[in-house]
Amino acid sequence: MGCPVGVGPEIILQLFDSLPAAAPAPVVLGDLGVLTRTAALLGNTSKPVAWQPGAAIKPGTVPVLELSQLAAEELRWGQPTQETALAMAAYIRRAVAGTLAEEFSAVVTCPISKKALNEAGIHYPGHTEMLAELTGARRYRMMMAGTRLRVVLVTIHEPLAKVSGLLSPEGILDCLSMTADALRQDFALERPRIAVAGFNPHSGEQGMFGREEIEIIEPALRHYAGNAVVSGPWPPDTVFVKAMNGEFDAVVCMYHDQGLIPFKLLHFKDGVNVTLGLPIVRTSVDHGTAYDIAGKGLADAASLRSAWQMAMEIARNRGR
Amino acid sequence: MGCPVGVGPEIILQLFDSLPAAAPAPVVLGDLGVLTRTAALLGNTSKPVAWQPGAAIKPGTVPVLELSQLAAEELRWGQPTQETALAMAAYIRRAVAGTLAEEFSAVVTCPISKKALNEAGIHYPGHTEMLAELTGARRYRMMMAGTRLRVVLVTIHEPLAKVSGLLSPEGILDCLSMTADALRQDFALERPRIAVAGFNPHSGEQGMFGREEIEIIEPALRHYAGNAVVSGPWPPDTVFVKAMNGEFDAVVCMYHDQGLIPFKLLHFKDGVNVTLGLPIVRTSVDHGTAYDIAGKGLADAASLRSAWQMAMEIARNRGR
Repeated sequence: MGCPVGVGPEIILQLFDSLPAAAPAPVVLGDLGVLTRTAALLGNTSKPVAWQPGAAIKPGTVPVLELSQLAAEELRWGQPTQETALAMAAYIRRAVAGTLAEEFSAVVTCPISKKALNEAGIHYPGHTEMLAELTGARRYRMMMAGTRLRVVLVTIHEPLAKVSGLLSPEGILDCLSMTADALRQDFALERPRIAVAGFNPHSGEQGMFGREEIEIIEPALRHYAGNAVVSGPWPPDTVFVKAMNGEFDAVVCMYHDQGLIPFKLLHFKDGVNVTLGLPIVRTSVDHGTAYDIAGKGLADAASLRSAWQMAMEIARNRGR
Repeated sequence: MGCPVGVGPEIILQLFDSLPAAAPAPVVLGDLGVLTRTAALLGNTSKPVAWQPGAAIKPGTVPVLELSQLAAEELRWGQPTQETALAMAAYIRRAVAGTLAEEFSAVVTCPISKKALNEAGIHYPGHTEMLAELTGARRYRMMMAGTRLRVVLVTIHEPLAKVSGLLSPEGILDCLSMTADALRQDFALERPRIAVAGFNPHSGEQGMFGREEIEIIEPALRHYAGNAVVSGPWPPDTVFVKAMNGEFDAVVCMYHDQGLIPFKLLHFKDGVNVTLGLPIVRTSVDHGTAYDIAGKGLADAASLRSAWQMAMEIARNRGR
């Protein structure tokens, strides 16, 4: 359910309101009182009900595995408390434990507040790092996936001026192998085509505008020994046009905005964050708690809907 | 006409073939023999004819001010020579002189080969620098413009690792004032709204992922004293979505790919390069000579058509 005072509860209710009849029903790990109050406030038609593992799910209901009993009437939208933060952490822990035990097929996460988590004494740089630790994963990467583009980031939250010093052939190769594995295993692409973006304008134009392509990216490509069709370094300003036109299944990007600028332009509403490298299937919405609009019925459930559909697709492909 | 053995001749002929009847006819500064041969090869319906300043223009013709008499039958597509390079330079010089003298309202340039130009002993880093010198402009900037997005670059062909050191409040302010002038004067936007993109992921998140926003971009914004509506630094991965949705008239970008990745995604075929700061109106196609496809009838004239329309719009707004 993510943060109880963010947009999580309302996008979950929206998702259930528009659930196709034939779809396998998801279950919510969260707070029944918060969801009931949100449904009453926003006029959702699906009815939140308590649910226990193994119990049948009635159509038209929102099955809630109750992991907190927050005093819903005392909460303020956009104002997390110690209690909401601890509840949020409990949802994540139970989701991971249940999915590791194959009680659930996949975890789809709604947005959390990293700040609230930290203030409640639970210290992780972010959601993904918490999931990695809980599942014992040592290597993990973030993929942003949509119907028109998939990007995987070699570096993420780093000052741009430091990125050049953080790139290495080993890091790029690691990213390539995790991307290839994910495309094969999770997206059922037998022989995935992966483009590697350059770092500098025009990919450096033979070293005239920077040498990272010659010294780091090209050596990584030469050493790639997997069986994906890997190519690059491609000029960053045109590789995403090619990917959008179907020439590649994913683009490996050197820095955050290189991948996120084109991804958000194409998938601002329906982008999905997929964590590669975990022993469980995990997708996430690609937006934050949106405290400024929480509880107002303005949030768009498109990203959650895509994240849920993609989680089912990946779980199916992994035979879960 | 740009390089005589690139795609320039064929996109010019395509433009004339689809010219609206009521449009003011453009004139070509180029080579009659090359255009005649290209039209015969590709089956264009418009007929290239010699033209002199002041002469009437007949519908269905391509009026050519002859500035070279290349041996068209000896040229090879994609293989520039000393003669084609000198001819190409002559077209540019005559276009600039004629536009400075108000014989023409604007210059629209087809792609040139910088390499061929240099090998012929004419040394400029590029087309724009040549135009700046010929017109005596000391400050100039590149804007990429389309119907959905306009971007202006603070730094252009620089190694990405060096960009941080090249940014300064003065450079950003200069770019802001030239952008504001262009939007007002050339695009008739009385009170333009200009977004300034951050440099780091999430615009640095209060200095956590880099300090260029705090130390360089925010001071520039505080010192801006013009009357455009200027805002930022905006997170780079969402500012282009806002601009595409009509919230801004232009985005000032810190580096080449920050602006070019979103621009090419939205305007791969019909993007226009507009040079700000010149005393004449100059637009350009946003692609190169495309030697690999020249003479094959595969080139798309969409960018030239947009560049021509935008040149007319700017000239009209400037009262030329």
